[in-house]
Amino acid sequence: MSPSPTSNSTNQSWGGRFNEPTDAFVERFTASVDFDRRLALHDIQGSVAHATMLARVGVLTDDERDAIIAGLGKIRDEIERGEFAWSVQLEDVHMNIEARLTEEIGVTGKKLHTGRSRNDQVATDIRLFLRDEIDLVAGELARLREGLITLAEGEADTIMPGFTHLQTAQPVTFGHHLLAWQEMLARDHERLLDCRRRVNVLPLGAAALAGTTYPIDRHVTAELLGFARPAENSLDAVSDRDFAIEFTAFASLLLMHLSRMSEELVLWTSAQFDFIDLPDRFCTGSSIMPQKKNPDVPELVRGKTGRVYGHLMGLLTLMKSQPLAYNKDNQEDKEPLFDTLDTVKDCLKAFADMVPAIEARKANMLEAARRGFSTATDLADYLVRRGVAFRDAHEIVGQSVAYGLRHKKDLSEMSLEELQQFSDVIEADVFEVLTLEGSVAARNHIGGTAPDQVRAAASRAREALTALGGAT
Amino acid sequence: MSPSPTSNSTNQSWGGRFNEPTDAFVERFTASVDFDRRLALHDIQGSVAHATMLARVGVLTDDERDAIIAGLGKIRDEIERGEFAWSVQLEDVHMNIEARLTEEIGVTGKKLHTGRSRNDQVATDIRLFLRDEIDLVAGELARLREGLITLAEGEADTIMPGFTHLQTAQPVTFGHHLLAWQEMLARDHERLLDCRRRVNVLPLGAAALAGTTYPIDRHVTAELLGFARPAENSLDAVSDRDFAIEFTAFASLLLMHLSRMSEELVLWTSAQFDFIDLPDRFCTGSSIMPQKKNPDVPELVRGKTGRVYGHLMGLLTLMKSQPLAYNKDNQEDKEPLFDTLDTVKDCLKAFADMVPAIEARKANMLEAARRGFSTATDLADYLVRRGVAFRDAHEIVGQSVAYGLRHKKDLSEMSLEELQQFSDVIEADVFEVLTLEGSVAARNHIGGTAPDQVRAAASRAREALTALGGAT
Amino acid sequence: MSPSPTSNSTNQSWGGRFNEPTDAFVERFTASVDFDRRLALHDIQGSVAHATMLARVGVLTDDERDAIIAGLGKIRDEIERGEFAWSVQLEDVHMNIEARLTEEIGVTGKKLHTGRSRNDQVATDIRLFLRDEIDLVAGELARLREGLITLAEGEADTIMPGFTHLQTAQPVTFGHHLLAWQEMLARDHERLLDCRRRVNVLPLGAAALAGTTYPIDRHVTAELLGFARPAENSLDAVSDRDFAIEFTAFASLLLMHLSRMSEELVLWTSAQFDFIDLPDRFCTGSSIMPQKKNPDVPELVRGKTGRVYGHLMGLLTLMKSQPLAYNKDNQEDKEPLFDTLDTVKDCLKAFADMVPAIEARKANMLEAARRGFSTATDLADYLVRRGVAFRDAHEIVGQSVAYGLRHKKDLSEMSLEELQQFSDVIEADVFEVLTLEGSVAARNHIGGTAPDQVRAAASRAREALTALGGAT
Amino acid sequence: MSPSPTSNSTNQSWGGRFNEPTDAFVERFTASVDFDRRLALHDIQGSVAHATMLARVGVLTDDERDAIIAGLGKIRDEIERGEFAWSVQLEDVHMNIEARLTEEIGVTGKKLHTGRSRNDQVATDIRLFLRDEIDLVAGELARLREGLITLAEGEADTIMPGFTHLQTAQPVTFGHHLLAWQEMLARDHERLLDCRRRVNVLPLGAAALAGTTYPIDRHVTAELLGFARPAENSLDAVSDRDFAIEFTAFASLLLMHLSRMSEELVLWTSAQFDFIDLPDRFCTGSSIMPQKKNPDVPELVRGKTGRVYGHLMGLLTLMKSQPLAYNKDNQEDKEPLFDTLDTVKDCLKAFADMVPAIEARKANMLEAARRGFSTATDLADYLVRRGVAFRDAHEIVGQSVAYGLRHKKDLSEMSLEELQQFSDVIEADVFEVLTLEGSVAARNHIGGTAPDQVRAAASRAREALTALGGAT
Repeated sequence: MSPSPTSNSTNQSWGGRFNEPTDAFVERFTASVDFDRRLALHDIQGSVAHATMLARVGVLTDDERDAIIAGLGKIRDEIERGEFAWSVQLEDVHMNIEARLTEEIGVTGKKLHTGRSRNDQVATDIRLFLRDEIDLVAGELARLREGLITLAEGEADTIMPGFTHLQTAQPVTFGHHLLAWQEMLARDHERLLDCRRRVNVLPLGAAALAGTTYPIDRHVTAELLGFARPAENSLDAVSDRDFAIEFTAFASLLLMHLSRMSEELVLWTSAQFDFIDLPDRFCTGSSIMPQKKNPDVPELVRGKTGRVYGHLMGLLTLMKSQPLAYNKDNQEDKEPLFDTLDTVKDCLKAFADMVPAIEARKANMLEAARRGFSTATDLADYLVRRGVAFRDAHEIVGQSVAYGLRHKKDLSEMSLEELQQFSDVIEADVFEVLTLEGSVAARNHIGGTAPDQVRAAASRAREALTALGGAT
Repeated sequence: MSPSPTSNSTNQSWGGRFNEPTDAFVERFTASVDFDRRLALHDIQGSVAHATMLARVGVLTDDERDAIIAGLGKIRDEIERGEFAWSVQLEDVHMNIEARLTEEIGVTGKKLHTGRSRNDQVATDIRLFLRDEIDLVAGELARLREGLITLAEGEADTIMPGFTHLQTAQPVTFGHHLLAWQEMLARDHERLLDCRRRVNVLPLGAAALAGTTYPIDRHVTAELLGFARPAENSLDAVSDRDFAIEFTAFASLLLMHLSRMSEELVLWTSAQFDFIDLPDRFCTGSSIMPQKKNPDVPELVRGKTGRVYGHLMGLLTLMKSQPLAYNKDNQEDKEPLFDTLDTVKDCLKAFADMVPAIEARKANMLEAARRGFSTATDLADYLVRRGVAFRDAHEIVGQSVAYGLRHKKDLSEMSLEELQQFSDVIEADVFEVLTLEGSVAARNHIGGTAPDQVRAAASRAREALTALGGAT
Repeated sequence: MSPSPTSNSTNQSWGGRFNEPTDAFVERFTASVDFDRRLALHDIQGSVAHATMLARVGVLTDDERDAIIAGLGKIRDEIERGEFAWSVQLEDVHMNIEARLTEEIGVTGKKLHTGRSRNDQVATDIRLFLRDEIDLVAGELARLREGLITLAEGEADTIMPGFTHLQTAQPVTFGHHLLAWQEMLARDHERLLDCRRRVNVLPLGAAALAGTTYPIDRHVTAELLGFARPAENSLDAVSDRDFAIEFTAFASLLLMHLSRMSEELVLWTSAQFDFIDLPDRFCTGSSIMPQKKNPDVPELVRGKTGRVYGHLMGLLTLMKSQPLAYNKDNQEDKEPLFDTLDTVKDCLKAFADMVPAIEARKANMLEAARRGFSTATDLADYLVRRGVAFRDAHEIVGQSVAYGLRHKKDLSEMSLEELQQFSDVIEADVFEVLTLEGSVAARNHIGGTAPDQVRAAASRAREALTALGGAT
Repeated sequence: MSPSPTSNSTNQSWGGRFNEPTDAFVERFTASVDFDRRLALHDIQGSVAHATMLARVGVLTDDERDAIIAGLGKIRDEIERGEFAWSVQLEDVHMNIEARLTEEIGVTGKKLHTGRSRNDQVATDIRLFLRDEIDLVAGELARLREGLITLAEGEADTIMPGFTHLQTAQPVTFGHHLLAWQEMLARDHERLLDCRRRVNVLPLGAAALAGTTYPIDRHVTAELLGFARPAENSLDAVSDRDFAIEFTAFASLLLMHLSRMSEELVLWTSAQFDFIDLPDRFCTGSSIMPQKKNPDVPELVRGKTGRVYGHLMGLLTLMKSQPLAYNKDNQEDKEPLFDTLDTVKDCLKAFADMVPAIEARKANMLEAARRGFSTATDLADYLVRRGVAFRDAHEIVGQSVAYGLRHKKDLSEMSLEELQQFSDVIEADVFEVLTLEGSVAARNHIGGTAPDQVRAAASRAREALTALGGAT
């Protein structure tokens, strides 16, 4: 950068009032161009709309507008080709682009900044960028949901043990389990779209903090950029970072859900569970133990949960107690947001690719469900249907289980006589309710694990997904 | 508690299978009744609906239903009168109430638990409770917003310095500043109602994890309790705690906003700013320094931000990597949620009471706006209107400010000759744009600080608030 | 509280300057006595030392000192008997005690506050309290470490599969695994004692913020209270809350470790692993599933991790950006610290009680270690000893494992001929290295899993524990 | 990378057992070389020591050792010259270097990995790296402390208002205030060195998780690398990440302290306070407001607090509930640690450079101290010395202040008669205690604000700093 010849300044955008150049380390420390250049194309998109609006209201001539738009187009090409020369001395993405524009089209380039400030400009850039990224995230999220629904339909009849406290609880279907995952993601999807509504508001026109004296028309700019409306208050518009926090809160819930799925995938691929197989292409090995096949993808996704939680906490801390309006602290909003977006997109892609490749080891699942007295509740329910109060039935079955533990017999392995020593209302038909198939089929109401309910739930889930836009 | 006579168990609800009593410390350590008794009335509300549904589908007789409902009514009265004897040995609110019910109405009381489990029961209780609390929070939030809008209307013409980087930036109106706060809260209000939609779903019927074999009708229960629909998946229904996290994320953003307002209130009541007066009744003194009048309320609210952020992080950590379905870990969801609710309600009440009592020290605000070259941007805009490119105008004004700093003169205090040494396009009409009143009035577009815009914005804000239900 | 007769004030400690009474809600909102009364005995301890010092330097007469100490002794008795009448109107523990003292001994009671402020008083109280609590925590921590070392010695020869990525990796001894837990706690123990050093510094004498004009002798007070030294700077002394954060950071690491142990205990008690048995007294059952025996204690401890992480984040947020010196925000330091202490003590007690009762199911552990090619690394090492480069040996064994997977044979189950198809350096002595006992015994260096190393490590661990003070 | 000719594998380090190549996205997603290459020089340092030890115990010949060390030296040169070709397909820094070594020196290169695993290798690398970085951090921290002590000595007599609740409390000296900052940093410095002790332990030799069958001598390796001792337990050694969390907890406290200093610097450079001047070289301007000079450095440091808190929370979340031993999740430890280190070093450098350049505006400080009844406590103390009980004195001064507020007079501006209307023990000598100089000089005890105490405290602080190694 060569300093303006009529100035003793060290910085083209604000040097007039200063008596000494910025310290070299401070220049590097306070510059943001190394990360905010990621906003370059959205910065240009915003500038084109701003110039168009300025011409519409007569602040720029049509020729000036056209020169600016042409110059910006050329810069966009340079950036896309990787030929743009970024400069830390020019602080940020905005000044880099403006300096290049002025170099390209002369003094008219300097007019682009009329009626705006970097404060409202950067807020606009991030919202434009985030809106596009949200749409990408929504696409991957829908693809994962679609994969889960399809897999669940195929596994609607597959029986596995359901767990509470990681202890065998009751038999469930694998399809039902997969749809539980899908429900978590359905809520995330809704939250994402709620967040998008609040992102989709235009800060531009707030200028530095108070608005501008130029006769701008913010409704025009909003429309050109596809925003639902202009932000209502200039002080708020330049200092609001709620959207970054709200998105990161969405992401934290999403990663929490993915961490739960990951935990189960890791458990299920252990030798002890051995419920599923993950294809080799989603696993890696060990440099020292030749037999290892590690479920790296779910482990890594589980680990990345911390990263996203951390960004949420970082952004909340950032904004705590900041007085109005813009403070330099806010520059710290970008890196956590960018990293959250990248993490979310990668983790969703990894899961959306992997889920359809999960292979259930049905025999192992079934065998596991057979152990652990998983139909004890069914026996209690059987007793209740014969008039025993539920709490008493529970007690009777508890004693049967204690007997089974001592004699190493599951309930279905006991003779009628053995069962009858705990209650005389038990008859031969008890063995029907002690089968796994009978147990799952009997939970036949909305939300229950019965195969028919799973198929119906999958169908409703697909409809709901379609209503949100579906998988892209 | 006296153990059931037909059992060697130590716990009425699950002892049959166990060989030794629970360790006394473990009993206390794992019990939840000390905090979950707060859900008692909602537990009864859910039980009444459950009994009603069970009778509707024929699992209970009408007489049984009536006995249960009458018994629960009596228990509710005991609780409300503070006469209910809570027992830690009975673990939780559910078993305490059920044991009392059975004591009261006999064996029929044991039938109430038919077709449900504590897992779906507690999830239902929390949602019922949280839904009511959300409505209280929304009421206080609306009251605070209303107070801000009214105060803003009254201060639409009051001029104060606007700050960026806590440096004098441009003059703004106090009403405009207050509406910036209001905008933050408007987003919070929307998020709260979005959260309410996801809270308002019925878990009951999920039973322990897989649904139940009884012919329940979950749509009936949902309708009786005012829920929008039954939860779609039983495994998800008993293990989902998204609603607690989403509410706490809402609360974190809200407290972040209140911390920003608090920071400004503390600044403004300092001797150095002296922009406002807070009535004595919202302040406290010092035990050692007799002259002190401390802005305790905003300080304490600012401090409570950490508490709520902490609860958010605690809940996210709680759920990280939990396999399906219910795990004991989940018992830890209640205390952070309860404390978040109490904190949010108290802080909102404190602000809603205090805001209308804020008195602007208008003379001090005006005097502060006069200092600090706050109309420098207006001078730059003036130059642009005379054909100078914005970046050049910025440079010219920067040099004028440097001159002013050396000679201790604000821009409006310089003579025309002094100003003209920096640019020959400056003429006598420059002094019009250098007044504070001219500066704020000129920012006359939607979102700008002009008094007319502030009044129009206040009016729109009141309409938007009314659309969300308004202040109660 | 009856107001001072010569005053129109609403608060005995600071009302003189105020014109209206504190708002009733604000009084409740800003009061701390509901939680800081927990500091009462330490407040009295500090006051006794302060009075003693004041008499030593001549600010109080010996008679005044004696009257104060006698009065405080009486109040301590009232508190310990639960007969003290706490008042929210008196704000906090300090004013409650002082008001009662003045009631008891007359005007001399008012002299106790000479040369101090509530700011340095509360900082002193918390440090005295925390120091005592740290000693309790250290005792429980030592007891748990001792239990682990003893159990490890008993299980030094018990073979189980070692896992990485939850995949079978290499055989290890159960004693070795338990000592890994012990090492985590040894670091926590060190951190706790490092923290204690920084807690053990006297704030008293800092007064409100700047010190006092009375001729106090802070070295005397420090000595009377067992503090290592007076705090060096009054502004820092009244506003420093590092000790609370540092303790909570210690607690977060400790709970992280306990969450890891809990996770393993939950895994090991699952039907799929079935590696250990936890006595019934540490487990609970299900209200609906009669067969359940849930590992509630480790689950709950795992869940409480979030609570402590949350408090750490809350305290860090609390202190962020606070200007010197004391601000009301700081009142929010106590509840998270108290709850962290209670949680830490409970979780340590639960573990210290439970660990000695863990029973290894040795046959299951051994059988699990036999599966999963756990001696594959030993085969690779065998090849290396015969001159094969390690990376090539790894490749050879990888191919052997792939063969074993296809033919469902572990390495030790293959014939010599089968093994030799992958490398001709393999000879009959290979089967010695493929046994589990041979595998663990061969890792015979400091830190390795060989039984002899485990016994030696247990012995060193016990010595190190003793050096830190040992189990109490 | 070209696959090994004797293998069908897709990965040189573990492919033998696998049937299909890793998915291309998964390869990129799970690779760590993009960030862990930062450990390259420490990886080589560890490998040189490992090879040396292996030769010492006879596992390598001296020739093999020499070839390996020479090869590694060449690679180090390539890396330092930026000529090393990093490959994502080779996963991580370890495999990149080993592959290059084998390329360079042939099959002997493969022998380097004998008796170790990437699990203990990476743990060793991070500890070596972190130990060096801690020493750099300690150096900057010492430089900042030194700067503060020197500045404090120069400002030992400069009077400014001391604040509590941001309300004028009592006069203090600026030097005293600066030493309060120094005390915070002194605690951080201690914590850093405590952390270093726990970092300085050798994991190498733990191998994958259980130790190795080679006759390694871990004491030799520890000595070669300057570690205090080998880690005691192999399972713990490969999975322990306490050091990263403990360092980040140190960093969180440090940044919290820097955020407090930053907050005050921002306040003090505001037009309302105007207590100090920061040189232009540490400030930046505005692109739209030509008069602005923004305290960017402290603002940015304050903002970076969130980033470090976030990393702490991320790392704690990462480790929560991880079963032993190494899991892929752990790969996520590096980026937050690296970013924390960079942030800490930058923020310390920024402050260490800036602090000596702070210029006190002494007249403004003094004038501010004169306002706000800052000597009210001195008046109360005066009354006490004349026999009034402190609480009564407080009341009397409170009424004097209320009078002063009504008549716009500070205490020192009232006549003797005016003062005497509140207490007849007041005499003409009262005006001595109402001066600012008298007030600060009277707080003349260790920790007090008297200039002599400040000078003595600065001297002790310098000694303490020297004892920790001093500024480098």
